[in-house]
Amino acid sequence: MIVLMQPGTNGVHVAEVERQVATDGYEAHVWHGSRTIVAVVGHSSRPLLPETYANLPGVEKVTPVKVPYTLASRQFHAEDTQIKLNGAAMGGEKVLVIAGPCSVEGREAIIEAAHAVKEAGATALRGGAFKPRSSPYSFQGHGELGLQWLAEAREQTGLPIVTEVMDPNLVGLVCQYADVLQIGARNMQNFTLLNAVGEARKPVLLKRGMSSTVEDLLMAAEYILAKGNHEVMLCERGIRTFETSTRNTFDANAIPVLKHLSHLPVVADPSHAVGKSEYVEAIARAAVAAGADGLIVEVHPDPANAMSDGRQSLDPAAFARMVESVRRIAQAVGRSA
Amino acid sequence: MIVLMQPGTNGVHVAEVERQVATDGYEAHVWHGSRTIVAVVGHSSRPLLPETYANLPGVEKVTPVKVPYTLASRQFHAEDTQIKLNGAAMGGEKVLVIAGPCSVEGREAIIEAAHAVKEAGATALRGGAFKPRSSPYSFQGHGELGLQWLAEAREQTGLPIVTEVMDPNLVGLVCQYADVLQIGARNMQNFTLLNAVGEARKPVLLKRGMSSTVEDLLMAAEYILAKGNHEVMLCERGIRTFETSTRNTFDANAIPVLKHLSHLPVVADPSHAVGKSEYVEAIARAAVAAGADGLIVEVHPDPANAMSDGRQSLDPAAFARMVESVRRIAQAVGRSA
Amino acid sequence: MIVLMQPGTNGVHVAEVERQVATDGYEAHVWHGSRTIVAVVGHSSRPLLPETYANLPGVEKVTPVKVPYTLASRQFHAEDTQIKLNGAAMGGEKVLVIAGPCSVEGREAIIEAAHAVKEAGATALRGGAFKPRSSPYSFQGHGELGLQWLAEAREQTGLPIVTEVMDPNLVGLVCQYADVLQIGARNMQNFTLLNAVGEARKPVLLKRGMSSTVEDLLMAAEYILAKGNHEVMLCERGIRTFETSTRNTFDANAIPVLKHLSHLPVVADPSHAVGKSEYVEAIARAAVAAGADGLIVEVHPDPANAMSDGRQSLDPAAFARMVESVRRIAQAVGRSA
Amino acid sequence: MIVLMQPGTNGVHVAEVERQVATDGYEAHVWHGSRTIVAVVGHSSRPLLPETYANLPGVEKVTPVKVPYTLASRQFHAEDTQIKLNGAAMGGEKVLVIAGPCSVEGREAIIEAAHAVKEAGATALRGGAFKPRSSPYSFQGHGELGLQWLAEAREQTGLPIVTEVMDPNLVGLVCQYADVLQIGARNMQNFTLLNAVGEARKPVLLKRGMSSTVEDLLMAAEYILAKGNHEVMLCERGIRTFETSTRNTFDANAIPVLKHLSHLPVVADPSHAVGKSEYVEAIARAAVAAGADGLIVEVHPDPANAMSDGRQSLDPAAFARMVESVRRIAQAVGRSA
Repeated sequence: MIVLMQPGTNGVHVAEVERQVATDGYEAHVWHGSRTIVAVVGHSSRPLLPETYANLPGVEKVTPVKVPYTLASRQFHAEDTQIKLNGAAMGGEKVLVIAGPCSVEGREAIIEAAHAVKEAGATALRGGAFKPRSSPYSFQGHGELGLQWLAEAREQTGLPIVTEVMDPNLVGLVCQYADVLQIGARNMQNFTLLNAVGEARKPVLLKRGMSSTVEDLLMAAEYILAKGNHEVMLCERGIRTFETSTRNTFDANAIPVLKHLSHLPVVADPSHAVGKSEYVEAIARAAVAAGADGLIVEVHPDPANAMSDGRQSLDPAAFARMVESVRRIAQAVGRSA
Repeated sequence: MIVLMQPGTNGVHVAEVERQVATDGYEAHVWHGSRTIVAVVGHSSRPLLPETYANLPGVEKVTPVKVPYTLASRQFHAEDTQIKLNGAAMGGEKVLVIAGPCSVEGREAIIEAAHAVKEAGATALRGGAFKPRSSPYSFQGHGELGLQWLAEAREQTGLPIVTEVMDPNLVGLVCQYADVLQIGARNMQNFTLLNAVGEARKPVLLKRGMSSTVEDLLMAAEYILAKGNHEVMLCERGIRTFETSTRNTFDANAIPVLKHLSHLPVVADPSHAVGKSEYVEAIARAAVAAGADGLIVEVHPDPANAMSDGRQSLDPAAFARMVESVRRIAQAVGRSA
Repeated sequence: MIVLMQPGTNGVHVAEVERQVATDGYEAHVWHGSRTIVAVVGHSSRPLLPETYANLPGVEKVTPVKVPYTLASRQFHAEDTQIKLNGAAMGGEKVLVIAGPCSVEGREAIIEAAHAVKEAGATALRGGAFKPRSSPYSFQGHGELGLQWLAEAREQTGLPIVTEVMDPNLVGLVCQYADVLQIGARNMQNFTLLNAVGEARKPVLLKRGMSSTVEDLLMAAEYILAKGNHEVMLCERGIRTFETSTRNTFDANAIPVLKHLSHLPVVADPSHAVGKSEYVEAIARAAVAAGADGLIVEVHPDPANAMSDGRQSLDPAAFARMVESVRRIAQAVGRSA
Repeated sequence: MIVLMQPGTNGVHVAEVERQVATDGYEAHVWHGSRTIVAVVGHSSRPLLPETYANLPGVEKVTPVKVPYTLASRQFHAEDTQIKLNGAAMGGEKVLVIAGPCSVEGREAIIEAAHAVKEAGATALRGGAFKPRSSPYSFQGHGELGLQWLAEAREQTGLPIVTEVMDPNLVGLVCQYADVLQIGARNMQNFTLLNAVGEARKPVLLKRGMSSTVEDLLMAAEYILAKGNHEVMLCERGIRTFETSTRNTFDANAIPVLKHLSHLPVVADPSHAVGKSEYVEAIARAAVAAGADGLIVEVHPDPANAMSDGRQSLDPAAFARMVESVRRIAQAVGRSA
């Protein structure tokens, strides 16, 4: 349920609405945009009566929410949410590019990669210190050491760090180093982890599960938002289908659909979506043309010798060309990059 | 098998290769591009010995084909195939837009639609006279009468006609009216029909089946090419997946993959791919950004009252805006529209 | 709309209902089961008013149909439709097994196969004379010669023939030889072909398209029924999914769902559903346990040297074991085999 | 790599192999079946040289493993793994049935359900105390209180408890109450959780992810086995496809494929696989006919008023009928139930 306050409402009125929500056993999330809005969510044995709220002082209108994700919905925020990143904002006018290797392979390697992607125009650095691997016998990442190397790369280049967290017990540790917490596709419905990053005060990049619907993705975001962390970026990274010529199927449709249903920024990952480096640039362009606010791209100084995902990684020169061509697309849709 | 002739080879040498192919029980398809190439296809009880061909006069090199679609492959034609359409060429520098209603609903309606899409910048008119419908009780199209109305619309506007043929017995009839024969998604592996349009001398727009792989699509094109009709446009129109927020899932990946594997032009159908008019423009932009040579879009003067597919049809004003925004994307990728 | 006649209604009353249907511009399909039922289908510019029919003499009740396939629905026939085959009935108490090679490879080969499957307990012989192949260069079947060999195999063994028809122009020819017309998965929505076999007076085995829903399959059956051919067997043969360890994914769910929604017999094709001979028996058992009325299985005297589908073909000994184990399952569900 | 010891090998020889494995930086898993086998897994900077091992005393043969899941493979254990449950064994001659409500709704409710399923022939009781829910606002389970009620139900009926664990931090707590730890489909690739239950000494029921391949499932099992917990049951519960008439698509093929590739017991969940109670019995039968070792079924005393999954829950009478019909199928495949 959405409670729209009258223009120029004061804190006393909002507090009264919040008190009523508490009395009824629900939770209130207040949004101060062009207008103040209170979203009422949660579950309780007491019914939620719209008329009770409509009659409170300072309330203009009470509307039910037709989708199961109240806080992630456009009904709650009409305006695009903007999440600050390196002097710009994901969800703002500029299309932001996050780039870097699949895994942090070593100190020199990640610092070299950071300089390379910065030079080509990246806004942030990606790199995995904790790696979800299908096999228990594959390299699982350098762990905290990897985080330290990422921090060193940030120090040298100024690029903020985007890195994955897989374990609810390590959210605190990862927060000490990371600027953005990444939730991987395989953990999109790991509700314990979603709750843990919801308690954190760092932006979250939430990857769509490989067979999750757009609605599933928005519900997963709602878990994080409901815990009070309002900085969630939604990431389309390809879904699993019958097609075998590419690693996944990039669901371009999801981009305008997510932008229509939600105020959260939408990031596309063309690397995982297509899985072969020769097609990454085309899909990066398509994503921005469809309305994506940002990109996250795998770049490796020497893809042929990468420890993971080399087949889909761009080398720095190809990445620089990609940024250039994405910039032209961004301009064609009235943005910059 | 691909036989590359020496530069400046003459007809006598090519004829000798063709004779050998006939002797071995296969079929030769000759391509005169920057170099003359003979593709050897078919099946026969006699083995195909590369050395026999390598030793013929005028032959430079004999190479096996690594994919099961010889004539559709880039190995056969390195250059993009261009198919003439209304003074331009599908597969050329300009991105061409085919537009019109799902079905030809009446004489005035189709003429009105033709004027509207022409004014907004369409290169050709689409409209179904024979409609494949899930239910035997749904409107099945006006048949030949619909074709006559289409011809009248062409006469008034100059727009060439793209229309579907479903019945191998009606290929001749449809050829009397149509400029491009459309094969629908449900008939992509209707081999009887593919053979029939392969015998025709009209360009074919071949839609990808809703659960066909990229390779299946190229094999279906091969059927048409093998019969001697070399003018085939491949159309990505969305595939069937688990996602329910859109009608189909637009497989953006397929566009660069098809352009990489094949010389045939690639057309995208954003209307069927997404199924809701509010998202069509975004997907049209994405398709062109990914490298599509053309678009086929459903446009109806009054979508709310369309006899079929109204939910995904643009009205003429929205279509004009779409063409405008697609034009900017085309320029951003170094083309026009 | 379904019109239920009173018990003991007479032909005059039914004729009056049919006259009203004709007046309204629809089509009547009459079913004489334990009660006489008239299904009203088609489309017309005149509205279909239930009360008009309810007031006709001899009419007991008029009910709308909640699904888009009236003639295929259980609402039209409450009882299972039984289709005669070699002295038994598909849809009856006995589980019937159709078996034979993928393609008719030669005269001796098909006769040998026919004897082998008969001995092991098959009720009918399958074998393709016209083969739908992904590649135009693959063996396309022996055509009419193959049909003649099939007829010879029938003469020697008494087994009726199930064989595929792909071309609407060849329905007449195939009917001269076949006892059951098979529509392949790729042609499930080839409406021209469905109409053509709907005009024939031979039972049809309709295979589910590889990405068709259960409802799509019932709508395809409706095309055939609407033309007056009431003998349609529905065949689950596996659908296309992301799983790669098997050729297709056998949709066991579809069996009880189809039996619930429709009166038509349901046949399972474990060979195409799983694609590897070592798993065929397990899936044949599962199908019968789930309620299938029959099976269609690929059997080849020498699978390793089959011209097509050898990987999924059983040899006669493995087929005999399969029949034996299916028989025990049939008994466990109160049937025979 | 698999090291097969000679018949009658002694502990000294096995210890020597283990020492070599440690020297090389890998891990050894020893299996004492009809023959003693040492599996060598893990990753290390040192190469794994088969000849080193072949030359050790007591070693008969060294073979590479062709699949990426060594411990879960049939190559490691030729015999079926049997996991004790309530006096019987999952993976043994008897088909075992686990049954109970989706969630533990209250003390009396779970005790009533336990008595009902026991009477109908269940071997173990299922019930969720921690519930993974798409929405953060849905009922999330009674937590530890639910576990206590489950323990009380076990005390009264003797039925062992199967219950889900979602949080790696709660594995210890759940182990205090549960007899079998369930990993839900959404957590199948939650590697942190897999590692945690791998450290536990309780059997694990591992549900297949809704878009996980058979190989993904075996790799997830490998995570648990690699940590030393060898009691893993694999559960097929339906995959996500385009079909909408059922909740998921039951992948019957997966059952014989898993039994062929792995020694681990295979359990089927017909309730989630089909999602509608009227079809559960048919799919339960199909699963056992295909070779499943056990079933896990949702049963609720009053499905219409269940707090979750009521649509797919059987009432006790329907469950009793299901057990009866499954028993006949089990006998038809040479087992009991």
